[in-house]
Amino acid sequence: MTAGDGVRDTLARLRADVADLHRMLTRYELVTWTAGNISARVPGRDLMVIKPSGVSYDDLTEERMVVTDLHGRLVDGDQAPSSDTDAHAYVYRHMPEVGGVVHTHSTYATAWAARGEPIPCVLTMMADEFGGEIPIGPFALIGDESIGRGIVEALHGSRSPAVLMQNHGPFTTGKTARDAVKAAVMLEDVARTVHIARQLGEPIEIPSGQVTSLFHRYQNSYGQRTDR
Amino acid sequence: MTAGDGVRDTLARLRADVADLHRMLTRYELVTWTAGNISARVPGRDLMVIKPSGVSYDDLTEERMVVTDLHGRLVDGDQAPSSDTDAHAYVYRHMPEVGGVVHTHSTYATAWAARGEPIPCVLTMMADEFGGEIPIGPFALIGDESIGRGIVEALHGSRSPAVLMQNHGPFTTGKTARDAVKAAVMLEDVARTVHIARQLGEPIEIPSGQVTSLFHRYQNSYGQRTDR
Amino acid sequence: MTAGDGVRDTLARLRADVADLHRMLTRYELVTWTAGNISARVPGRDLMVIKPSGVSYDDLTEERMVVTDLHGRLVDGDQAPSSDTDAHAYVYRHMPEVGGVVHTHSTYATAWAARGEPIPCVLTMMADEFGGEIPIGPFALIGDESIGRGIVEALHGSRSPAVLMQNHGPFTTGKTARDAVKAAVMLEDVARTVHIARQLGEPIEIPSGQVTSLFHRYQNSYGQRTDR
Amino acid sequence: MTAGDGVRDTLARLRADVADLHRMLTRYELVTWTAGNISARVPGRDLMVIKPSGVSYDDLTEERMVVTDLHGRLVDGDQAPSSDTDAHAYVYRHMPEVGGVVHTHSTYATAWAARGEPIPCVLTMMADEFGGEIPIGPFALIGDESIGRGIVEALHGSRSPAVLMQNHGPFTTGKTARDAVKAAVMLEDVARTVHIARQLGEPIEIPSGQVTSLFHRYQNSYGQRTDR
Repeated sequence: MTAGDGVRDTLARLRADVADLHRMLTRYELVTWTAGNISARVPGRDLMVIKPSGVSYDDLTEERMVVTDLHGRLVDGDQAPSSDTDAHAYVYRHMPEVGGVVHTHSTYATAWAARGEPIPCVLTMMADEFGGEIPIGPFALIGDESIGRGIVEALHGSRSPAVLMQNHGPFTTGKTARDAVKAAVMLEDVARTVHIARQLGEPIEIPSGQVTSLFHRYQNSYGQRTDR
Repeated sequence: MTAGDGVRDTLARLRADVADLHRMLTRYELVTWTAGNISARVPGRDLMVIKPSGVSYDDLTEERMVVTDLHGRLVDGDQAPSSDTDAHAYVYRHMPEVGGVVHTHSTYATAWAARGEPIPCVLTMMADEFGGEIPIGPFALIGDESIGRGIVEALHGSRSPAVLMQNHGPFTTGKTARDAVKAAVMLEDVARTVHIARQLGEPIEIPSGQVTSLFHRYQNSYGQRTDR
Repeated sequence: MTAGDGVRDTLARLRADVADLHRMLTRYELVTWTAGNISARVPGRDLMVIKPSGVSYDDLTEERMVVTDLHGRLVDGDQAPSSDTDAHAYVYRHMPEVGGVVHTHSTYATAWAARGEPIPCVLTMMADEFGGEIPIGPFALIGDESIGRGIVEALHGSRSPAVLMQNHGPFTTGKTARDAVKAAVMLEDVARTVHIARQLGEPIEIPSGQVTSLFHRYQNSYGQRTDR
Repeated sequence: MTAGDGVRDTLARLRADVADLHRMLTRYELVTWTAGNISARVPGRDLMVIKPSGVSYDDLTEERMVVTDLHGRLVDGDQAPSSDTDAHAYVYRHMPEVGGVVHTHSTYATAWAARGEPIPCVLTMMADEFGGEIPIGPFALIGDESIGRGIVEALHGSRSPAVLMQNHGPFTTGKTARDAVKAAVMLEDVARTVHIARQLGEPIEIPSGQVTSLFHRYQNSYGQRTDR
């Protein structure tokens, strides 16, 4: 098998995975109509697989997924890539450890984003998954590098794989696209729970030393060893 | 094929489309029991296809859809047309660019309508889809032209394809019935997110120049060219 | 066919209808676990068909439905009747126009009941269906006639087919069990929408003359003539 | 049949039951991703059956369930047990009447836990099921006995089979795993309803004598005699 075959196989697998993972966005009600997208980096290549623009989740097949380079230029596929492709591409160029990116407008996370308010770490599950508060990124218009740059700057000052872009919505990252989807699902869950807790008073903060120890334990010992 | 065959084919297609689109209202939980309806203009004819009154969504087949003229008089079908037919008809008579109309009592949109309060434009997704705030139409009783007139007057002062009729609920419009359904789905989504954002403080406003540039970009470049 | 056959046929049909209508309670998420029940009066007989106590909705077949007299004594069936049977029976004894009763603990209606606060009529859909505010019934312990009496007294002072029993939850009535289920579904919908409207300010009241005219129009002209 | 066969049969049945009961957690939306777990005591043995760690609910088969002793040490199974195993084990060691334990991060229950605020008994359904308020347990880090001890101490001062661990989430108990699941489902339901009631004012309290009489009636006479 030539190097070319290896890439073809990897691309085929990633197209199928990314198409399939979009079902988690509808199952957990993180997206409405066509407003959310997932991408995966092609390992070892300056390429990514991403959702086409404006296509309904019911019609997302692996054949319709598109491949772009890390400046968002179409490399393979019949369809125009997601209108958020530039932001995904910027993240892959500047965060080599990231293998997957997810963008949604999930309700509670976007509500925090509309107020430009980070989500405080008041749940053990948040400490486990996010290692502290969920940061806010700047207001930025689509169409140049400002969304991507805002995401990367906000994530660099944080343990969190998730950022809330002001007035816009969440972007999440992970080692793989599946990890980024898990972060998007857990983010909406904690955004909702902390919102509801705050409606009737102030949640109790978790001291930062205990946030750190919860984060390290969870990142190192949760799940099956083969899963990690 | 005679002109008559062409109309018959168009009517058959519109009956099937409109019946089918009602499934999006239940899927996105915009309607309860029988309280919501969709219509489509028959292109080039003073006719529309609309839901029959009081029929459950499970029982909506294309055969049960009814055809009326643009004053709401039954032209074809066995069933009485929706009790909101006069409002749909008024919109088609006065807004020639509109090809589809949707009416629901979706929860969050109706909650803003109950307070008579427009939804402020604090989300990039709202700027994209609605081009600014969602306006309020007047309180109006069913039974004459006052609902239709209220909708048309409110929409004429706005870029938004959606209006919240006071104490009543939303009406949305589009070039096609599918576009009007998309507007109804996105409206409930932004009504919910802005409501939740407002529960814990004031959302940050988006400057009106940036609302305008988001709106124009989205209306001109989102999606696949063949989709638009 | 003897009179006995007619009653047997009616009972068989009512058992099937009442069993089947419970699916609407789960579909509209009005009930949790086994906490809600529906009954139907047997026309012309001092009998009713009601859900058995503590049986899960997945296991509700027509065979498991039970028949009692209008004092809640078991007449036919292998299972103990619902623990709310006495309340249903009291309603049938004192409201001859009622043919169906539904009891749930649906979330928003029960939240108004917990505060002992009637739901104000601020939606045209409420005026249509309920003809005014949804009244509150007294706090009453299970085990004697006090729940049934509380329901009947609250409904007698109102156009509404629904009442919120304080600290407990809603009971709804109708000409048929299906009508009572519709009232339970619409009640939760308006309880939710008015709650959400009130969270961010005061809804605009609908003048009582207009509530009356909406109610009369809807009760007399909505739907298909054969449906009513 | 030898004693060994009897245990094998019991274990097989408990593995199937516990795997199956996890479906109730997703059906009632009490869990997100893999964040919730159920266990059952093996009657007459110092053993329990529990969910493996980090396994998705779609992939939970009876074969993947694991058996541990009552100190959380793996006795049978290929997978690492739930990271909450120590807490479940502590409960079984100190509460011999408990046959099942459930842990979730269900939204409304966890919101009360984040504020460290017990849920007041303002609904007849709460009085029936929980016999009073739902107590708060202490903040405790995972990794030693402090979560288990916190659960047991909070439950010993209460009639409630449910406790809200501060900043963490609910644990519920029951005679069987199914009873503990029912308590988890009802807990989220009352946590949600009381939260919503409190958003617009103060719910009316139920006098404690009446809470007691509701609790005793329900525990002794609800449901079918064969069910209890």
